[in-house]
Amino acid sequence: MKPEQHPFTDDPARQIARLGECVLLEQIHNWLGSITPPAPAGMGDDCALLEFDSAQKTCITTDAITYGQHIDSSLTPFEAGVKLIHRNLSDLAAMGASPHSAVLTLLSGPDLDLQWLEAFFNGVRSACETHALKIVGGDLSTLEAGHFSASLALLGQCERPLLRQSASVGDWLYVSGTLGGSILGKHYSFNPRLAEGQWLSRQSECRAMIDLTDGLGKDLQALLPQDSSAAMDLTCIPLAPAAQEYAAQTGKPALQHAFSDGEDYELLLAVSSDSDCEAFEARWQSAFPKLSLTRIGQIVPKHPAGIFVEAGSGASIPWTDGYQHWKYHG
Amino acid sequence: MKPEQHPFTDDPARQIARLGECVLLEQIHNWLGSITPPAPAGMGDDCALLEFDSAQKTCITTDAITYGQHIDSSLTPFEAGVKLIHRNLSDLAAMGASPHSAVLTLLSGPDLDLQWLEAFFNGVRSACETHALKIVGGDLSTLEAGHFSASLALLGQCERPLLRQSASVGDWLYVSGTLGGSILGKHYSFNPRLAEGQWLSRQSECRAMIDLTDGLGKDLQALLPQDSSAAMDLTCIPLAPAAQEYAAQTGKPALQHAFSDGEDYELLLAVSSDSDCEAFEARWQSAFPKLSLTRIGQIVPKHPAGIFVEAGSGASIPWTDGYQHWKYHG
Repeated sequence: MKPEQHPFTDDPARQIARLGECVLLEQIHNWLGSITPPAPAGMGDDCALLEFDSAQKTCITTDAITYGQHIDSSLTPFEAGVKLIHRNLSDLAAMGASPHSAVLTLLSGPDLDLQWLEAFFNGVRSACETHALKIVGGDLSTLEAGHFSASLALLGQCERPLLRQSASVGDWLYVSGTLGGSILGKHYSFNPRLAEGQWLSRQSECRAMIDLTDGLGKDLQALLPQDSSAAMDLTCIPLAPAAQEYAAQTGKPALQHAFSDGEDYELLLAVSSDSDCEAFEARWQSAFPKLSLTRIGQIVPKHPAGIFVEAGSGASIPWTDGYQHWKYHG
Repeated sequence: MKPEQHPFTDDPARQIARLGECVLLEQIHNWLGSITPPAPAGMGDDCALLEFDSAQKTCITTDAITYGQHIDSSLTPFEAGVKLIHRNLSDLAAMGASPHSAVLTLLSGPDLDLQWLEAFFNGVRSACETHALKIVGGDLSTLEAGHFSASLALLGQCERPLLRQSASVGDWLYVSGTLGGSILGKHYSFNPRLAEGQWLSRQSECRAMIDLTDGLGKDLQALLPQDSSAAMDLTCIPLAPAAQEYAAQTGKPALQHAFSDGEDYELLLAVSSDSDCEAFEARWQSAFPKLSLTRIGQIVPKHPAGIFVEAGSGASIPWTDGYQHWKYHG
């Protein structure tokens, strides 16, 4: 008999809890070494681009929802099912891709309510029907009582994928919709910006894109090239009414919520500096009359005051923290 | 405020635990309705075939390993990482496909041991390197303390996929390797039969294939066409030494373990009735001199004695139950 090897430890110094999400991801990346190609073929963008002998480019993303983390009992099971699909579709939107097919993995305790699960799958089906997405496979696995998690691996196709790494110094920064306070409802009732992302992938002005899931403060950093900063026009940041409402509850500035709240599921994009911005904005307005697209800043060479600075004054903007999914308390 | 909706229930009549894996899968299939295409494009085979505008056919499968269900502390973390990859590769093998790329989802409690996780990923990397498989993306999610699950969504490519549904009455049934007693070690130390599956997909005699994960008794039923039975030569079933060893512990016949134990990860195939079996077997022997391929029976019209019968006597074979992953006790 070989000695037993337990996966869990009581020693806080050895627990994964002491690492933040970013450090843990970096660690896993190092452990995997050469079997993980660099982005865009591997980790590091909204989706990974797969090389097949096909005219259309194929991309893949995966995202889970876990009870107690991404969903709770304030959501109906239908809304939870929709959220699983929409979260993943938002990653496709950020590449300018359209959905193709997906596989769904369900992990659940034996005490899951069949009626709850049926309503959950009604939500999954409804969201898939809307976006012509097929579920082509899945897997069931058992957890202890009181646990539920569902994850999707989603394939999409695109002609001109919009990568994060294509942004350059000089590019204008734009954001769709409004930001902040998603915890008051948008985190599950958002519409993934698929049509908008596909439209943007056809505009030559648009060079790079990301969807806002962890907050502008964190996701914008993922779009900025090395040795650059973002000069932001704070008066232009499109605040969601929910950001104001939530600010009244927390006592923090609404602007801070626009930077730091996760799950906006809006698109953040870089538009090349030599673009005719007015013409670009007019074309957007005509294509999507009901959704705002706002210029919020510009990518500039690395600024001594920090990664985010105010466009006029050069004063540092402090809200560089986003939402860390892999966060523990205690 | 809308009323809270809890996913879990104390009422046994409403819990998913009262359904077996097969019934629950069928239920989910019904709930999803038209967004799940029939096999081979959707659920119901080892992989789903995806339609891209590509010369090679692309297929996808997904499978999870969960602590306490597929792995426990008797496995080293390295072995657990290898098992996650090999389980999924076995599904590709059953289509005759070769691995392309995968995404990995990790769900874990905060108390997971970093050293354990590093060794787990060493196992993942080692198995991926052996089979030229790239991990191109992933997701992290938080569970409560003491929980660990990892799932893979795996893409493969094949020229002539071997489907389950292509088997016909008259076909000979063959199985690779030996069966039974995998709980004594093979369940994590097996080699996925990728080279063998790819070779078989190039042999015109071979019409249909499945990998044995839930036991011959259950998986053979998935290969049989409607209104057919399997006439088995029980003296030919290739018993693993572990089946004999395990039988000595359980007091059951070794043959029962060959039918009912899960996780053999061997290939079960249907060879068309007009084949020159001797020539086919000789070609196999020359391609894979170290691995047996055994003719164990034939698909016959539905037999009054049952789904499995003895070839000579027509006596019923009782071991039609396989392993049900989604199984609860209590």
